[in-house]
Amino acid sequence: MVLTVRTRRKAELVDITAALDRLIAESGLREGIGLIFVPHTTAGLTINENADPDVREDLLAALERLVPERAAWRHREGNAPAHVKAMLTGGSQLVAIENGRLALGTWQGVFLCEFDGPRERRVFLRILAAAGEAGRRER
Amino acid sequence: MVLTVRTRRKAELVDITAALDRLIAESGLREGIGLIFVPHTTAGLTINENADPDVREDLLAALERLVPERAAWRHREGNAPAHVKAMLTGGSQLVAIENGRLALGTWQGVFLCEFDGPRERRVFLRILAAAGEAGRRER
Amino acid sequence: MVLTVRTRRKAELVDITAALDRLIAESGLREGIGLIFVPHTTAGLTINENADPDVREDLLAALERLVPERAAWRHREGNAPAHVKAMLTGGSQLVAIENGRLALGTWQGVFLCEFDGPRERRVFLRILAAAGEAGRRER
Repeated sequence: MVLTVRTRRKAELVDITAALDRLIAESGLREGIGLIFVPHTTAGLTINENADPDVREDLLAALERLVPERAAWRHREGNAPAHVKAMLTGGSQLVAIENGRLALGTWQGVFLCEFDGPRERRVFLRILAAAGEAGRRER
Repeated sequence: MVLTVRTRRKAELVDITAALDRLIAESGLREGIGLIFVPHTTAGLTINENADPDVREDLLAALERLVPERAAWRHREGNAPAHVKAMLTGGSQLVAIENGRLALGTWQGVFLCEFDGPRERRVFLRILAAAGEAGRRER
Repeated sequence: MVLTVRTRRKAELVDITAALDRLIAESGLREGIGLIFVPHTTAGLTINENADPDVREDLLAALERLVPERAAWRHREGNAPAHVKAMLTGGSQLVAIENGRLALGTWQGVFLCEFDGPRERRVFLRILAAAGEAGRRER
């Protein structure tokens, strides 16, 4: 299953939690593990707070301080910092699925991390089955 | 399955390897893949050296240098740096299970990363079945 | 399944995509999820651009700036920075397998991140089965 996300800024965190939950609902799967994966090298995925939007801005600003645009980059396309940020956040997340939706913590959301936008990005979702007894006994 | 961890300091790395192995033993599962997941946004998980405790202090100190407490954070709760550190470490780990325990490297342990403690934290463990032939042929 | 990689430099990113695809081909598995895992604490794994080799150099240089060799490290073995870099990149990656090979994006490759070489490193590959209907409907 694939999600298409149109980003609007050079760098932004897009909350894709609800869209992923819709994909899971369509699949009819009630329980398992969801592998969320971006097939891009200048975008990432993170799970973080979805309540206060200021957190997203702080995350982006922190990455900006860690990986400044102006440095002695060798890569000629001008997006070397975006590659570094994608390495730091990582490009996949695994989340349990319970009752047909992502089993996230109270304050958690899944965010597509755009570091070289605006672009059209894709997010793949794969669902894995949990082992019987162990999976059912969780919580 | 869930593990409850009471952290004691503002920031610390708590070795949860043995506790996870106990959960796996209780499950009766001998082989598979363990998904370890924290449902929190100011805590993370890392797999690193469990021999010399100084490594843990170095990891925390390095994160502290990368994400200083005093910076122009927008998030008003005062724990923005903890959110950033959680993004950098990540909140899930996947480890193969063999012979009823985590198949870690010689020097590896699984650590809960507390960045905004002390608190009571939860760690979820889900076990996935490996595909038959391929799983059995490993090692 | 295990891959042995002989690294040549103190720090380098080794493209192991083709070697992983060979392991998958040998397994006979056509579809599933591959868990790639390094059992080391001073090496990591990242998925990033495999077209321009300059990107690899930029990634290493960025980590070098973030985690300088000369700092007040407590760990006496002299490789504390390598432990920090391993934490930042992470030591596992999950990738879907389709048609008997890793289903990566156009510009993506899987890289072993050596931070304390040269050494002989191992990379474990485990294949998980995707849940039936949901797995088959992807793409």
